[in-house]
Amino acid sequence: MKPNFSLRLRVFNLNCWDIPYLSKHRADRMKRLGDFLNLESFDLALLQEVWSEQDFQYLRQKLSLTYPDAHYFRSGIIGSGLCVFSKHPIQEIIQHVYTLNGYPYMVYHGDWFCGKAVGLLVLRLNGLVLNAYVTHLHAEYSRQKDIYRAHRVTQAWELAQFIHHTSKSADVVLLCGDLNMHPKDLGCCLLKEWTGLQDAYVETQDFRGSEDGCTMVPKNCYVSQQDLGPFPLGIRIDYVLYKAVSGFYIYCKTLKTTTGCDPHNGTPFSDHEALMATLHVKHSPPQEDPCPARGPAERSALTSVLREAWTELALGVAQARWWASFTGYVIVLGLFLLVLLCVLAAGEGAREVAILLWTPSVGLVLGAGAVYIFHMQEAKGLCRVQAELQHVLRRERETQDLGSEPHLAPLLTAGGGQS
Amino acid sequence: MKPNFSLRLRVFNLNCWDIPYLSKHRADRMKRLGDFLNLESFDLALLQEVWSEQDFQYLRQKLSLTYPDAHYFRSGIIGSGLCVFSKHPIQEIIQHVYTLNGYPYMVYHGDWFCGKAVGLLVLRLNGLVLNAYVTHLHAEYSRQKDIYRAHRVTQAWELAQFIHHTSKSADVVLLCGDLNMHPKDLGCCLLKEWTGLQDAYVETQDFRGSEDGCTMVPKNCYVSQQDLGPFPLGIRIDYVLYKAVSGFYIYCKTLKTTTGCDPHNGTPFSDHEALMATLHVKHSPPQEDPCPARGPAERSALTSVLREAWTELALGVAQARWWASFTGYVIVLGLFLLVLLCVLAAGEGAREVAILLWTPSVGLVLGAGAVYIFHMQEAKGLCRVQAELQHVLRRERETQDLGSEPHLAPLLTAGGGQS
Repeated sequence: MKPNFSLRLRVFNLNCWDIPYLSKHRADRMKRLGDFLNLESFDLALLQEVWSEQDFQYLRQKLSLTYPDAHYFRSGIIGSGLCVFSKHPIQEIIQHVYTLNGYPYMVYHGDWFCGKAVGLLVLRLNGLVLNAYVTHLHAEYSRQKDIYRAHRVTQAWELAQFIHHTSKSADVVLLCGDLNMHPKDLGCCLLKEWTGLQDAYVETQDFRGSEDGCTMVPKNCYVSQQDLGPFPLGIRIDYVLYKAVSGFYIYCKTLKTTTGCDPHNGTPFSDHEALMATLHVKHSPPQEDPCPARGPAERSALTSVLREAWTELALGVAQARWWASFTGYVIVLGLFLLVLLCVLAAGEGAREVAILLWTPSVGLVLGAGAVYIFHMQEAKGLCRVQAELQHVLRRERETQDLGSEPHLAPLLTAGGGQS
Repeated sequence: MKPNFSLRLRVFNLNCWDIPYLSKHRADRMKRLGDFLNLESFDLALLQEVWSEQDFQYLRQKLSLTYPDAHYFRSGIIGSGLCVFSKHPIQEIIQHVYTLNGYPYMVYHGDWFCGKAVGLLVLRLNGLVLNAYVTHLHAEYSRQKDIYRAHRVTQAWELAQFIHHTSKSADVVLLCGDLNMHPKDLGCCLLKEWTGLQDAYVETQDFRGSEDGCTMVPKNCYVSQQDLGPFPLGIRIDYVLYKAVSGFYIYCKTLKTTTGCDPHNGTPFSDHEALMATLHVKHSPPQEDPCPARGPAERSALTSVLREAWTELALGVAQARWWASFTGYVIVLGLFLLVLLCVLAAGEGAREVAILLWTPSVGLVLGAGAVYIFHMQEAKGLCRVQAELQHVLRRERETQDLGSEPHLAPLLTAGGGQS
């Protein structure tokens, strides 16, 4: 590769809100999105919430000349909703499905049925290896009482780990997607601290778009006040994040967002705003290391966020175990009720009532059994991530001067040398 | 690193058959295993089927001086059963849970409840980066009528992909575990062709142990004839596989197995035989590349196994869809029956019978609904892997002279340029 190597990368990201039977004006929005992507001819278009495979195939067909390569990430029952269109050949593909992703009995939230995931595409652009990740994390339905917080933190950690372990030989890492987290949220900090990814909105000198870079704005006709919760001016939950791994330097020259309407005729593409980033990759001068080893400040920030995540997951484990215990009691109660109903049915007095109550009682026992099993699995999944966090904390401790961080010791010694 | 760098790595692998309430002589076997591991002082001991976390903690305690670092891979409801004990500090940990792993309604097989997985440990040994993987794939309960074959092929592909994408900056890759596949089985070939891993039993010049390297042998008192199926002399389903990635050369100096009894007092550690490998890692001479680019023969072998896997998964998809359709009909039938029972219950003639039949009918509809959802998810998971295989086939085709492989074209053009 030449020393004056330079690469421009134009990236498009959008949560498409393409939910069959539920989303408004799907066909029209998909058509206009396809026209726009063809017109703009980005290097990569990374989409979320394309929950109709037919719509993917439609876009695939429509974009085939401008974006010859494409991939749809199948997962779960409904699907991850992730897909990508690329102007350049996709060399390799892999995906990772998050192990915790909400609750199956929260049918009206539906996240569990989607099999939320992260997809990775490996591209080679003029000899440069680009790892491009696309993801969509569990939605936040209530900011005040967020029952999915531990799951989202777990997903953020799995995402960070997946990127960390699969990008070791990449030159440039790009992550786009709907993280369903605000920039200062725990999971977002955990992801950025562990991977070293930088936020295009924070880094760019040239931002044009919605106020504060928000990606859900009240001006968008598909956004209700309920979607924005306690943030009536908008929220920023969709991101373009990047880093150069070694020997390269990357910066975001421009970042644009749509502002509640599409750039041509005023009707938005989706209930989210699209992100359009122009990134430049260059050889880093030999004296500048784009990924310097973590200094004391970075180490301290990482340790702090790891501990916070560990504590958050401990709350999650306690809650999961509470539900497992509660449903355990319900199972015992249900079995007792079934025995009682058998006795009543054997007699004459309340035979019909006993037989009528048999169905809901069996349902109670089976339903409670399923919920019990689910929460046992949830607790195990959370404990697993806690063990991984604890392992990193232990490794960090070994490279730090522990004398200045005595408050870490109790947390670390709790697990001893094991994880 | 010095040019005359040399490293000896002693590795132990065992499927421990440590199932609470079911396995015989657990406590005694765990005690003797701990004593043996302490005595032998391997670099790494990789274990499967340690399904009791208490037993892991017992071993952890017992081995703490010889193996200061350890990790237990939590997963699913019961757990993956995987754990590792290391003489050297474990730098990094990650695990991947397989997306398809049997059927929840096959309770007596139990694999679904385990959350079968692959665990990765990154170690640094004298500057060399070692990626050590431990795994356990879905069991084969019937060789003749193996309903889990597509799932095991899917797991083998996920395992191969996980290794491929996470080992790009490793110097040496080691995979140990119970693959539940014979050496010539499709999944085993797929794994070896895609990753380039070599089989210690095939490569070593110095093998001592059971005949043909079998890891389940009739001589073992815990093995029944039923376990061996049509192979009364034994089967080889546990492996030590390895490769050097670049700049290094690895070979297996010796490979030993137990032979139906432990090396000291005759009673076996488990129903599987343990594998003990002594591996040597050296700098490869500059003229020798340990990972040369695939030649035409290797490409042809890879293409052939990818196609075979694709076809196997196509059969799996057809079967999954058949079950989804069948349960769909059962749901409709069940709903019709429920309406009929309501009508009967409203009358006088067969009121009690109608009410009595209400419970099994509701159960039928709910059960069929769950099975329907599960098989829809299975079909999606299999299609996803098919798309990944198809993508690799397409890439392979682009680097091959297609003129000599016209029979590949129909398969590849079926998906066009998309995946």
